[in-house]
Amino acid sequence: MSYSMVELIRTKRDGGELEPDALRWIIEGYTADRIPDYQLSSLLMAIVFNGMSRDELGPWTEAMLHSGDVLDLSAVEKPKVDKHSTGGVGDKISIPLAPIVAACGVAVPMMSGRGLGHTGGTLDKLESIPGFTTTIEPSAFGDQLNDIGVVMVGQTETLVPADRRIYALRDATGTVPSVPLISSSIMSKKLAEDLDGLLLDIKVGSGAFMKTVEDATILAETMVGIGASHGTPVTAILTDMSQPLGRAVGNANEIAESVDVLRGGGPEDVRTLTVRFATEMLMLAGVGDVDTATARVMNAIESGSAYEVMIELTERQGGDPAVIENTGLLPHAAHEHILTAPRSGVVTRCDAYAIGAAGVRLGGGRATKDDRVDPAVGFLIEAKIGEAVNEGEPLARIAYNDETKLQSALGTLDNAWEIGDETLSADDLILGEIQ
Amino acid sequence: MSYSMVELIRTKRDGGELEPDALRWIIEGYTADRIPDYQLSSLLMAIVFNGMSRDELGPWTEAMLHSGDVLDLSAVEKPKVDKHSTGGVGDKISIPLAPIVAACGVAVPMMSGRGLGHTGGTLDKLESIPGFTTTIEPSAFGDQLNDIGVVMVGQTETLVPADRRIYALRDATGTVPSVPLISSSIMSKKLAEDLDGLLLDIKVGSGAFMKTVEDATILAETMVGIGASHGTPVTAILTDMSQPLGRAVGNANEIAESVDVLRGGGPEDVRTLTVRFATEMLMLAGVGDVDTATARVMNAIESGSAYEVMIELTERQGGDPAVIENTGLLPHAAHEHILTAPRSGVVTRCDAYAIGAAGVRLGGGRATKDDRVDPAVGFLIEAKIGEAVNEGEPLARIAYNDETKLQSALGTLDNAWEIGDETLSADDLILGEIQ
Repeated sequence: MSYSMVELIRTKRDGGELEPDALRWIIEGYTADRIPDYQLSSLLMAIVFNGMSRDELGPWTEAMLHSGDVLDLSAVEKPKVDKHSTGGVGDKISIPLAPIVAACGVAVPMMSGRGLGHTGGTLDKLESIPGFTTTIEPSAFGDQLNDIGVVMVGQTETLVPADRRIYALRDATGTVPSVPLISSSIMSKKLAEDLDGLLLDIKVGSGAFMKTVEDATILAETMVGIGASHGTPVTAILTDMSQPLGRAVGNANEIAESVDVLRGGGPEDVRTLTVRFATEMLMLAGVGDVDTATARVMNAIESGSAYEVMIELTERQGGDPAVIENTGLLPHAAHEHILTAPRSGVVTRCDAYAIGAAGVRLGGGRATKDDRVDPAVGFLIEAKIGEAVNEGEPLARIAYNDETKLQSALGTLDNAWEIGDETLSADDLILGEIQ
Repeated sequence: MSYSMVELIRTKRDGGELEPDALRWIIEGYTADRIPDYQLSSLLMAIVFNGMSRDELGPWTEAMLHSGDVLDLSAVEKPKVDKHSTGGVGDKISIPLAPIVAACGVAVPMMSGRGLGHTGGTLDKLESIPGFTTTIEPSAFGDQLNDIGVVMVGQTETLVPADRRIYALRDATGTVPSVPLISSSIMSKKLAEDLDGLLLDIKVGSGAFMKTVEDATILAETMVGIGASHGTPVTAILTDMSQPLGRAVGNANEIAESVDVLRGGGPEDVRTLTVRFATEMLMLAGVGDVDTATARVMNAIESGSAYEVMIELTERQGGDPAVIENTGLLPHAAHEHILTAPRSGVVTRCDAYAIGAAGVRLGGGRATKDDRVDPAVGFLIEAKIGEAVNEGEPLARIAYNDETKLQSALGTLDNAWEIGDETLSADDLILGEIQ
């Protein structure tokens, strides 16, 4: 079957629907350099305006996921479930979550990303563990999953090449913010992991791409719909990202906070989301009802078996397990600056976006893809929404290595905190669930 | 001044307005190969959806018109006025019009196009005069305008190169149908002719790009606005294109009909539009009020002075004036097929689009830019809207050279004519005027 690309662009421009064969022809043609960038970018902009229907998104995503290699994990007998977060600040949930789920007998073939913009990335955090590698040949995934139940790596070059090329084009042509294009990008990569189930954490708020529950719901429904087209169960949970998750924002310090959770401690919000997500992933794996799953998750933490998986994962991926046993051995910055409360009262804002952006300026994140990350810098947040502070008490402890970068970071923090008089509780942590 | 192209695309995508310097930077950057096709096509699609304001269109068009050479006709003392038609079927008005206006003492530096799609082109028609060349060096325009008052040529390669490149990209990326992009394309070429005034003939109806008076009005207002930004007076007249203009649709036969008009004859609709347009052009040149201008136009026809200019123009541009003196010498086709009325009654439809498309199939037009045109083939329409016919009488005489092409042409004519019982008059020829 052959098509005229300009006819297909016109159809999408005029609000029509493209047929499955045409959508496959576009993805295959673009990947094979038969369709030029200038025609695809024009189509992508028409999609930004006119969207894609569920009937279009299924074959479009399917064609993307088959544009390169697809993982074959048939040698892994356990059910395989992954989690994806749309990205936030202080969002280290994947790090305690994956070992817990693995300890409960469900395999987690997790492929994560790096931080970009104001959001952090799981790979950057893991790499603050000395020696830890996030590059493993896909052919070795099966053995590691059979042995310890978890792999935590970056996207490989051979999986879903269409997404890499289309994303680069979108980045250069103003066609990033489109729910169907975002959804197909995420889902093509996740569905190429040969999963039995997928949990999506859709962040909502100042530190997230989606600012409102309404927008996040549309994104969640779109991705759940793509999962249904593919035959993979997907659960999406909408969670708050108006303030950072936990107390630690950075890389090494987020590993330390994650280890605290695996030891039964850690901040309440991180613990709550980790337990909830682990429970959902067990249910996606068919482990049983919510009570059975929750009990198993709690037991994995309390028995120390999840912590043991974290040690095994670190050893297996070349990291030094001593830093897990003693997180004081993780990289730490040379200096600390304490940001103090200008007045007494109750914190009414602790802005995730501002703190995330400050973290990038400190050197803990990336402004462009080629930037190097300093694992040691970051924030320890002392006052979150609803918490009382006295004038002069710390709002946050800032670990830094470079005075100029500290000053630059402080520049974005002017309005990050707001202190009021009334008592105020933080927004609900969990804002909705879509299956 | 330098910009980020992706930022500018985002601004336009989100409904914002681009500043004049940014618009110039885009046109200059694209023409100089600093901005890649894939970014411009994405911006163009955003413009298809979000349009351009009058404040944007001025500098955008100005930058296009200065992307290459601009005619310098300062050596021509007479006022210089041109006409542009948005394209129709049987639209030969330019051919009698330009000599008439020149005969009235106003210079006409007319650059025209070729037929594409179902519409005819002035250059193709002129080239059916043996020897007539439509390629003249711009440096020779001034002398010819001073000597005989009229030049009828094709667009030169050195004028407005940005338009040629952008149009080719639009054609390949589904971004042709956009009022601001159409307007800036036309106006950049016309304003590069160093004019004192411009008349626009905005066609409306089945044979035109604009199907409704509302859409045509928006296009007219947009182009008149660009003229105002440039400081050039522009008058736009909306005219009917639901049925072909005149009786002749083709190339050589349209030259013959044009010569009839210059001799004081010709079909009433062609004569009416020609006189009206010539009057408007004289008024744009400041010749005087409508009565003075009309009287001068009528005199140029009746005295034979306009016909004399047509003879001089033909000689000057290498054509054989004998075929103007005796249009029976123009190329003629080998065969004639008569399309007859299936019943008696009054013609209620004589569809411009269908007849134009049939003309292309006969070989008289172009499906693609590289097609060659057969000057001899075409239609002589015997029954137009409101005219009575008896069953078996001719609706049209079709001049053809190739039986296969005739059959192909007949295939598109099935519903071109409709014959009813009531009396019906044709739509008004002139549907509006915008200044």
